[in-house]
Amino acid sequence: MRKMTEEFLHNAFAGESMAHMKYLIFADEAERKGLVKLANLFRAIAYAEFVHARNHFRELGLLKQEMIDNVQQCIDGETYEIEEMYPVYNNTAVFQNEKGAERSTRFAWEAEKIHAEMYKKAKELVSKNEDYPANKIYICPVCGHTIEGEPPEKCPVCGAPKSSYKEFSV
Amino acid sequence: MRKMTEEFLHNAFAGESMAHMKYLIFADEAERKGLVKLANLFRAIAYAEFVHARNHFRELGLLKQEMIDNVQQCIDGETYEIEEMYPVYNNTAVFQNEKGAERSTRFAWEAEKIHAEMYKKAKELVSKNEDYPANKIYICPVCGHTIEGEPPEKCPVCGAPKSSYKEFSV
Ligand SMILES: [Fe+2]
Ligand SMILES: [Fe+2]
Ligand SMILES: [Fe+2]
Ligand SMILES: [Fe+2]
Ligand SMILES: [Fe+2]
Ligand SMILES: [Fe+2]
Repeated sequence: MRKMTEEFLHNAFAGESMAHMKYLIFADEAERKGLVKLANLFRAIAYAEFVHARNHFRELGLLKQEMIDNVQQCIDGETYEIEEMYPVYNNTAVFQNEKGAERSTRFAWEAEKIHAEMYKKAKELVSKNEDYPANKIYICPVCGHTIEGEPPEKCPVCGAPKSSYKEFSV
Repeated sequence: MRKMTEEFLHNAFAGESMAHMKYLIFADEAERKGLVKLANLFRAIAYAEFVHARNHFRELGLLKQEMIDNVQQCIDGETYEIEEMYPVYNNTAVFQNEKGAERSTRFAWEAEKIHAEMYKKAKELVSKNEDYPANKIYICPVCGHTIEGEPPEKCPVCGAPKSSYKEFSV
């Protein structure tokens, strides 16, 4: 693919991903305010942006035939966030005395460390043609803390109670 | 907020939004290959990235108290895509003879025109403290075409059949 078209498709993927994210955030907000049909509109349009992002992603050749190559992309992304991005962003927030940004970057950084380990385990299994072993994953809705099997009494990162964890199961 | 911290939080919001999007794409791929527990892991971690993105978004002050201000952000984003981004990206794809990119940018561009109109209607209703009127929205899973009430026999943008449309209802 020609370089300028590739750069533009990358930008479009970023734009669609951010639009999708904003609409999901606004959907929850609308629901909280009792605007359930507006929330439904936001979620539907968020899905349309997902379709656009996926089309751009495919055209860029980033969706690989072999699942192990997709999992490797996840490991690389999480590793960059753990070793480069969040250390610098968190350090800058401390340096500039921005307490809210310090917290939101620290929360993310802590979860990415767990994500990288999970994806490394997934890679090993996928290389043996096996599925991931856990069928229950729990996420803290305040900080994103991620754990298999059973949530802790209190989130070790932000202190949210066990009952608030969101379950993902198959 | 200090400018550098703000710039970094913006970048982190973009990074989290793209990670979230990739994991949703990979989840569908994993499911298609029968790796249902890996798909569940991708969806759970995608939700953790949503939590991170929402935290950064809130710290940036972009989640507004008044829903009308959030809807205005959506109108502004869609309008930029319709009037600036997709015309230039699509024109470049034609100019560089990149057929796949031409299609994926055209598909998105067509849907954004509809999204902008829906959000304008939503803004008018929200300004009168009313909810959005439609309780069923349909999305074409191939191109993102968006329609209220009932899907057409064939998608007017990509030709996908009526039965493939994804329903969002309340
Ligand atoms: Fe879009
Ligand atoms: Fe992560
Ligand atoms: Fe937490
Ligand atoms: Fe994250
Ligand atoms: Fe849109
Ligand atoms: Fe379509």
